[in-house]
Amino acid sequence: MSNTIGTLLKITTFGESHGRAIGGIIDGCPAGVIITEDTIQEALQRRKPGQSDYTTTRKEDDKVELLSGVYEGKTLGTAIGFVIQNLDAHSGDYDLLKEVYRPSHADYTYDVKYGHRDYRGGGRSSARATACVVAAGAIAKQVVLQCTRQIKFTAPEVAVWVNQIGNLKANPASAPIYQEDVYASTLRCPDEKAEHAMADLIKEVKAKGDSLGGIIRGEFRNIEAGLGEPLFNKFQSALAQAIFSINAVHGFEYGLGFEYANHYGSEVNDAFVMEDERVVTKTNYSGGIQGGITNGMTITFNVAFKPTATIGAKQQTINAAHEELELKATGRHDACVLPRAVSIVEAFCWLVLADFILLRRTNRVEDI
Amino acid sequence: MSNTIGTLLKITTFGESHGRAIGGIIDGCPAGVIITEDTIQEALQRRKPGQSDYTTTRKEDDKVELLSGVYEGKTLGTAIGFVIQNLDAHSGDYDLLKEVYRPSHADYTYDVKYGHRDYRGGGRSSARATACVVAAGAIAKQVVLQCTRQIKFTAPEVAVWVNQIGNLKANPASAPIYQEDVYASTLRCPDEKAEHAMADLIKEVKAKGDSLGGIIRGEFRNIEAGLGEPLFNKFQSALAQAIFSINAVHGFEYGLGFEYANHYGSEVNDAFVMEDERVVTKTNYSGGIQGGITNGMTITFNVAFKPTATIGAKQQTINAAHEELELKATGRHDACVLPRAVSIVEAFCWLVLADFILLRRTNRVEDI
Amino acid sequence: MSNTIGTLLKITTFGESHGRAIGGIIDGCPAGVIITEDTIQEALQRRKPGQSDYTTTRKEDDKVELLSGVYEGKTLGTAIGFVIQNLDAHSGDYDLLKEVYRPSHADYTYDVKYGHRDYRGGGRSSARATACVVAAGAIAKQVVLQCTRQIKFTAPEVAVWVNQIGNLKANPASAPIYQEDVYASTLRCPDEKAEHAMADLIKEVKAKGDSLGGIIRGEFRNIEAGLGEPLFNKFQSALAQAIFSINAVHGFEYGLGFEYANHYGSEVNDAFVMEDERVVTKTNYSGGIQGGITNGMTITFNVAFKPTATIGAKQQTINAAHEELELKATGRHDACVLPRAVSIVEAFCWLVLADFILLRRTNRVEDI
Amino acid sequence: MSNTIGTLLKITTFGESHGRAIGGIIDGCPAGVIITEDTIQEALQRRKPGQSDYTTTRKEDDKVELLSGVYEGKTLGTAIGFVIQNLDAHSGDYDLLKEVYRPSHADYTYDVKYGHRDYRGGGRSSARATACVVAAGAIAKQVVLQCTRQIKFTAPEVAVWVNQIGNLKANPASAPIYQEDVYASTLRCPDEKAEHAMADLIKEVKAKGDSLGGIIRGEFRNIEAGLGEPLFNKFQSALAQAIFSINAVHGFEYGLGFEYANHYGSEVNDAFVMEDERVVTKTNYSGGIQGGITNGMTITFNVAFKPTATIGAKQQTINAAHEELELKATGRHDACVLPRAVSIVEAFCWLVLADFILLRRTNRVEDI
Repeated sequence: MSNTIGTLLKITTFGESHGRAIGGIIDGCPAGVIITEDTIQEALQRRKPGQSDYTTTRKEDDKVELLSGVYEGKTLGTAIGFVIQNLDAHSGDYDLLKEVYRPSHADYTYDVKYGHRDYRGGGRSSARATACVVAAGAIAKQVVLQCTRQIKFTAPEVAVWVNQIGNLKANPASAPIYQEDVYASTLRCPDEKAEHAMADLIKEVKAKGDSLGGIIRGEFRNIEAGLGEPLFNKFQSALAQAIFSINAVHGFEYGLGFEYANHYGSEVNDAFVMEDERVVTKTNYSGGIQGGITNGMTITFNVAFKPTATIGAKQQTINAAHEELELKATGRHDACVLPRAVSIVEAFCWLVLADFILLRRTNRVEDI
Repeated sequence: MSNTIGTLLKITTFGESHGRAIGGIIDGCPAGVIITEDTIQEALQRRKPGQSDYTTTRKEDDKVELLSGVYEGKTLGTAIGFVIQNLDAHSGDYDLLKEVYRPSHADYTYDVKYGHRDYRGGGRSSARATACVVAAGAIAKQVVLQCTRQIKFTAPEVAVWVNQIGNLKANPASAPIYQEDVYASTLRCPDEKAEHAMADLIKEVKAKGDSLGGIIRGEFRNIEAGLGEPLFNKFQSALAQAIFSINAVHGFEYGLGFEYANHYGSEVNDAFVMEDERVVTKTNYSGGIQGGITNGMTITFNVAFKPTATIGAKQQTINAAHEELELKATGRHDACVLPRAVSIVEAFCWLVLADFILLRRTNRVEDI
Repeated sequence: MSNTIGTLLKITTFGESHGRAIGGIIDGCPAGVIITEDTIQEALQRRKPGQSDYTTTRKEDDKVELLSGVYEGKTLGTAIGFVIQNLDAHSGDYDLLKEVYRPSHADYTYDVKYGHRDYRGGGRSSARATACVVAAGAIAKQVVLQCTRQIKFTAPEVAVWVNQIGNLKANPASAPIYQEDVYASTLRCPDEKAEHAMADLIKEVKAKGDSLGGIIRGEFRNIEAGLGEPLFNKFQSALAQAIFSINAVHGFEYGLGFEYANHYGSEVNDAFVMEDERVVTKTNYSGGIQGGITNGMTITFNVAFKPTATIGAKQQTINAAHEELELKATGRHDACVLPRAVSIVEAFCWLVLADFILLRRTNRVEDI
Repeated sequence: MSNTIGTLLKITTFGESHGRAIGGIIDGCPAGVIITEDTIQEALQRRKPGQSDYTTTRKEDDKVELLSGVYEGKTLGTAIGFVIQNLDAHSGDYDLLKEVYRPSHADYTYDVKYGHRDYRGGGRSSARATACVVAAGAIAKQVVLQCTRQIKFTAPEVAVWVNQIGNLKANPASAPIYQEDVYASTLRCPDEKAEHAMADLIKEVKAKGDSLGGIIRGEFRNIEAGLGEPLFNKFQSALAQAIFSINAVHGFEYGLGFEYANHYGSEVNDAFVMEDERVVTKTNYSGGIQGGITNGMTITFNVAFKPTATIGAKQQTINAAHEELELKATGRHDACVLPRAVSIVEAFCWLVLADFILLRRTNRVEDI
């Protein structure tokens, strides 16, 4: 249960950071979706470590192997199994950590919970597990883009980008941001000026052995109205559940979010108007969702990440024998995880979207 | 599925605002928990409308009827069914709204999704549905307080309060805040000075026919380490899913939340130290959760609410025939929902906590 | 979880035999289905006790109250809540049974499991709980009959009848059996001659304070091909799970069932042929399902029931203090439950069918 | 959902017969269970094809690779991923079947349902998928045997064997049958005399290109009372759902099963008596389950299999273009699947048992 997410389109994943492999199973994917390993590989490429000076030096091919569920380039409607081998696992780096609990990591909590822990590279708590989410998201994206009713309209789009690193905020152009443009940027930030400043900041902080958090911003565009299942599987509930499963995420808001507190209702209600015979809202403070159901407007959201817990400085901590000691981190890591997290957030957007589109087809008797 | 929440301790609810009744079923509640209707009634009392000048004038007894699953004052281990009648439903007030979509309400999205809508009082999208959550939460609280392993330790506590209304922030004493003290305050704000200012603001805004949002803050104290199920059913994932199912919630953060972005890792890592032979962290920026699992420290979180969508001012909108028109709200409503939302957030805290405690008992072979 | 059944169309039920009420929630029912309380009442009428000499003398109105999810005669797509009051509960009859475990009843196992038991009328283990299944089944039937794709073809039919009581087997005409004709028969047996013999047998056995089991037979006709979800939610897996939840059921087979053991493959393979441009099989030993998926042929199945556990004769047993004693049953009961069980089996057929039809709409990308 | 089974201990499987690999994920397995690949391999060995004259000549190593969830020989509490490569896939043998629907196979129904089919070796509908169940069952067995409360009592046992092939019935000794003795027999039949006759029958039938069905019998011994979750997740409901997911299964009964119809209640009620201070029943017609909950007695059941659908004789059928034609089977297959099915049925017994034991630990507040 805990390793599965989704209602009709479900993914279940497995894998420790330094085990033999990681992988997953996608259940409930409709038959007839055109999928290639290349499509998935392309998505994995964007999450891959070792691609720039700003990320961990771990180098993984992250080569996905589709084991089932796709035949002659199309999904079969059966379970899609896939694995990604772990190749560049420097487990030796973690020997010192066998008995030590790193501050603000999951070492201690996993040990308390399970009593037996794969300490190598963080084990199951490693961000490596998100590669499976990215692979599944690439398939979910094709489900969305190829489903018949979407094809008749403007295709849905998802755009996710780095909007703040440390206290440096991006100020992207107001024109729609396209995901491919984001991926053309090393730091996944569509504001070139801000990106340069961010790059300098990361280098500086990295040199000091310190780390940075920040904010990722995202939006869904051209989304049909009617997605989301009240009461408890509202669009925002499902998206928040997914997003909070990403390591280091500490906040999620949609529409005006926390800023709503500072406004009167009369300022921030979204008036309905007609535009080209379509129902739209004049403003979109609600962020495209009302009562847990999409209203056809752009869905906007922000995700807050804490700074990477692994830092170079000496830190006070304890070991499994509950002795206090000082720790100086080893192992490879990112000084700022946000650039690599963009593809993970994007993947969850497609997964949530595909799941709700499938559910939507069962909402009215005249569709059944 | 969409009307059910929880993994082992599950609640399923039903009910429209102006239907005959609302209610729910709690499944997976262990046998032997001492429960009375009074315990539940007491919790419902705190959510009840019509209790002060600051809330809607709708007056409901909100009298819970326990129909099954409890016998001779103790749970049977079987499904607990309960209903709450709808008595003071002024459906006539909503006749004008039959064909009109209120801005920032769920009228339009329900209509688009289902094609057939109970417009009276917001139907299923009404905050009235949360009375069932409060009833279930009162039972979940007893599960937590009465389970054997908890009893041996200091009992878990949950405290939830109004921390900001409009731009007025509370500044409560740093000593632990107790839920009963919060409920002793009309506005559910444990800072008396701030409460007075908030009361004035609500009156002023209400008089203008306008509305306010704000922030609710909460914490879990004395929580055992080891609760939360990675990957996708992390403590924060489950809590966020629950909290985002509450109407008007637009943001959720735990620990340092969005504020993390402005700090370096070296500033906000939580060092482990020993205190009275217990593992604690020197600071608690993480908010009591690491890797999705509780670490035994206090769990802290904030919830952002948008201002009530129903306002007295004239607003532009459309009707079901897609004609533009002007709307002046009728029907009873709260100018600020936060005081009444406190008991709903609290209820979800107990529900999530009870569910994870049950799951925890199945985590290790030596416990089984 | 244990009180819920179904994947997309789910029912959750609650209620002890002598508690205040029993009831349930149907989640996932599409919007726009025309439903009245009368439709449901009619179905409940067929399961109701106290209707003939052959059944228990407990008299319950079994009046269903629809509390939500249906508005102006049509489903809203929201949760459908309903309750049925317990009126004629003679709990006093069961006082003697407070501490005694009736042979072949669930008294002992509930006590061992939960440690606290509502002994009155069997509590949660009472057949009374099936009234909720019958109510839900009546709604599921309307989902099936009103869904657009079914309407275009010949409407699906379900027929369930008593085929054997004790060692008396019915030999119904080979023409299709219609459910309304079955319900026109007191014993729910479409072979009048056999019914008379069965009636005599029941009277005779009842007079002796003894009881009878038997076999219920059922079929689904005009079912679209493609229903059923491999691997573990095959049509027969879901139907068997449902049927085995009925008290006293001890066997389920479909198609040729246990009789297959006595045949060679060459005798019982079902050859495909074309008939009026439709794919059919020349024979139908498979019972309409291959690989867990319907093939468009009639689905046939048998259900075996043990004799009612409550009998008039003195029986050896023990009490809660583990003392041996002799018991002579009191309380009202059926000497043979099969006639009343017909409507329960029928209800599950519609529930399973509706669920698979909904799932079917999400199987192919071109349907989504 | 359809590729997952279980409530707390869940398995999800993937894999087509001639795809790259098959495999699965076990979620909810408690931490601390001692597991080796050898234990799993041993179980797979018993299901493996190509081991005797009586089974298909397909030769697969069926070598399991544990990819995650087990570290230093013990489970981690995290998801257990495993794969089994497909090596000896003679896909060429199936080229003729690309467009042809084999009678009583799932070719047609998969094609109707999904519109796109991996016809090679039956694709997802192949019995090959059950290797994953056997692997998971071997792990579930260790969960049961190693959990603390079981260890204190006599260890639970499962025994499953071939009890009938064609019309030849075994008549095993009444002493308990042990699974290892069953596996010592080529045909998995613990009655040597019957086994010889069955072997002759299979050879004879195989020579004619024909096939056989039969009945597998099983029992659980030393099972704690209190397992099974009413209403819809009764012990027998879950077991039946699992068993009916096995290809070719057409019937399931427990206790006296279909034979109950021929008896009076007074003959077949199970009287409670005390034996060595334990509650037992004098007879055990109920088969160890009352009200869906185990009562501590041996659980007994029978499973009916249809004859293998693949036969050598010419058969009438149609192709994808709906043209009638004659088919003569190619491809490797078993003339009688029962001997190999024994290990699959056994695996499901352990999976169902382990799942209910985990759930049992959450049934009472004093256990939590």
